[in-house]
Amino acid sequence: MTDISGDSTPGLEFAQAVLAAQPFSRLVGARVAAFGGGRAVLAIDVRDELRQQNGFLHGGVLAYAADNAITFAAGSTLGSGVLTGSVSVQYLRPAVGVTLRAEARVVHAGRRQAVCDCELIMVAEDGGELVCAIGRGTVLVVDGGAG
Amino acid sequence: MTDISGDSTPGLEFAQAVLAAQPFSRLVGARVAAFGGGRAVLAIDVRDELRQQNGFLHGGVLAYAADNAITFAAGSTLGSGVLTGSVSVQYLRPAVGVTLRAEARVVHAGRRQAVCDCELIMVAEDGGELVCAIGRGTVLVVDGGAG
Amino acid sequence: MTDISGDSTPGLEFAQAVLAAQPFSRLVGARVAAFGGGRAVLAIDVRDELRQQNGFLHGGVLAYAADNAITFAAGSTLGSGVLTGSVSVQYLRPAVGVTLRAEARVVHAGRRQAVCDCELIMVAEDGGELVCAIGRGTVLVVDGGAG
Amino acid sequence: MTDISGDSTPGLEFAQAVLAAQPFSRLVGARVAAFGGGRAVLAIDVRDELRQQNGFLHGGVLAYAADNAITFAAGSTLGSGVLTGSVSVQYLRPAVGVTLRAEARVVHAGRRQAVCDCELIMVAEDGGELVCAIGRGTVLVVDGGAG
Repeated sequence: MTDISGDSTPGLEFAQAVLAAQPFSRLVGARVAAFGGGRAVLAIDVRDELRQQNGFLHGGVLAYAADNAITFAAGSTLGSGVLTGSVSVQYLRPAVGVTLRAEARVVHAGRRQAVCDCELIMVAEDGGELVCAIGRGTVLVVDGGAG
Repeated sequence: MTDISGDSTPGLEFAQAVLAAQPFSRLVGARVAAFGGGRAVLAIDVRDELRQQNGFLHGGVLAYAADNAITFAAGSTLGSGVLTGSVSVQYLRPAVGVTLRAEARVVHAGRRQAVCDCELIMVAEDGGELVCAIGRGTVLVVDGGAG
Repeated sequence: MTDISGDSTPGLEFAQAVLAAQPFSRLVGARVAAFGGGRAVLAIDVRDELRQQNGFLHGGVLAYAADNAITFAAGSTLGSGVLTGSVSVQYLRPAVGVTLRAEARVVHAGRRQAVCDCELIMVAEDGGELVCAIGRGTVLVVDGGAG
Repeated sequence: MTDISGDSTPGLEFAQAVLAAQPFSRLVGARVAAFGGGRAVLAIDVRDELRQQNGFLHGGVLAYAADNAITFAAGSTLGSGVLTGSVSVQYLRPAVGVTLRAEARVVHAGRRQAVCDCELIMVAEDGGELVCAIGRGTVLVVDGGAG
């Protein structure tokens, strides 16, 4: 198990390599800010291409971030042989700010699946943070187990 | 209420204009294939930029499509003064094919919110279709009501 | 796999025996109305003990019925070696009537889990039916598989 | 708003009266252990009538408890004019112990709805506690608002 306290653990580098291998994550512009020990933090800098018609960050970006952060958090515990089973997002307020942080953690990991929670936090220009949505998901272990 | 049977109803044109006003939907490459009467269908042609590391369509694209199709379906009944309250996606199988169709419909619409279901269907090159995920969401009426 | 078309298939009798072995299902007064082929229908006759403070059937009865019907539907496909992983219920309208029918079906069954949907239908004295809530859940195969 | 720190606040007494007016809550044997300030705790002493076929507390009891605790937590903030919109439960491990505590709290309350989380905790004979399921739900304000 890797630890999120260090910025250059193999775990973090591994997670960054997996994210870099996801073309859609590159299109969105996500990066792994922390990874390990049942936690994963993805960060996305807000740019015009990611907005909806009222100027807020599009809900689909939040849903993508929840889905991916949850899967990475589970992968930090279960290994890379995992599949996302489900993700749900509750939107709490319009997503305004300069950076989205999706902070996911494993709530419970069994042999067959992990249940993860995620906070979708908008960071303002002055560094202020506001939870604008919360997510929850399940991640399944594929046959052959962690890898 | 507009009807989805015609391709050039005002309803469809209105929905297409809303989608075109969403920069993130343009980035993903979504289009409104049908709209009206409590239904909305979004279509996304698969391209390499939308994949994850194993070549499948990224789950985040499915989650975006469910979120947006559900909101459009509700908007066809409740009007444009709506906010997405929640969305959940159950992934059933890897998303393989040339086009994603997100087909959403209103299950129940009250004064305060609508509950919608969505099928996420991958269309293969030979036209074969397979449901690869199912979504469910709630859409809230904002003050001032339908617009 | 058993078929729900017959009232006295071994499948139905087996499901009835499992339900009878659940003390809480006896307390609620549930019965298996149909079982087999990826479907299960539980029925509960409404009585005063099952109501909330406004005279409607308590939401907790609906949640119990969704949970159990979903697990039985999955069990009809996966066998009895299953565990309920999750259940969610969307309430659509107050539950009024003489009998609750929880009709669950498997949407997709894989090797590791099944995803099921459920309609919670209130039957009126004149036989009229109204969907008052919808449920969705996942059921996991336990080690050793179907039994 | 009432505070949960005192055992005899009007808030707690009000919540206890509402629960006592729910016949199904009496049938299950639930009591309000704490109420106020966006939080509610329901407790249920385990007895044989509440079990499933393997001797564990029935999942339907957990689902009932999540549903009701979430609604009470929201009611402590929004007032009594509320309707449960949805509830979801993720089961983490078999529910073993002498008492179930359903601890719900408001995550976010807006004008139209509140989003609440809930932990379903089994208390063992020696006082040890274990989270055996987690719940999440939405509670809608009915017309006329809190009151």
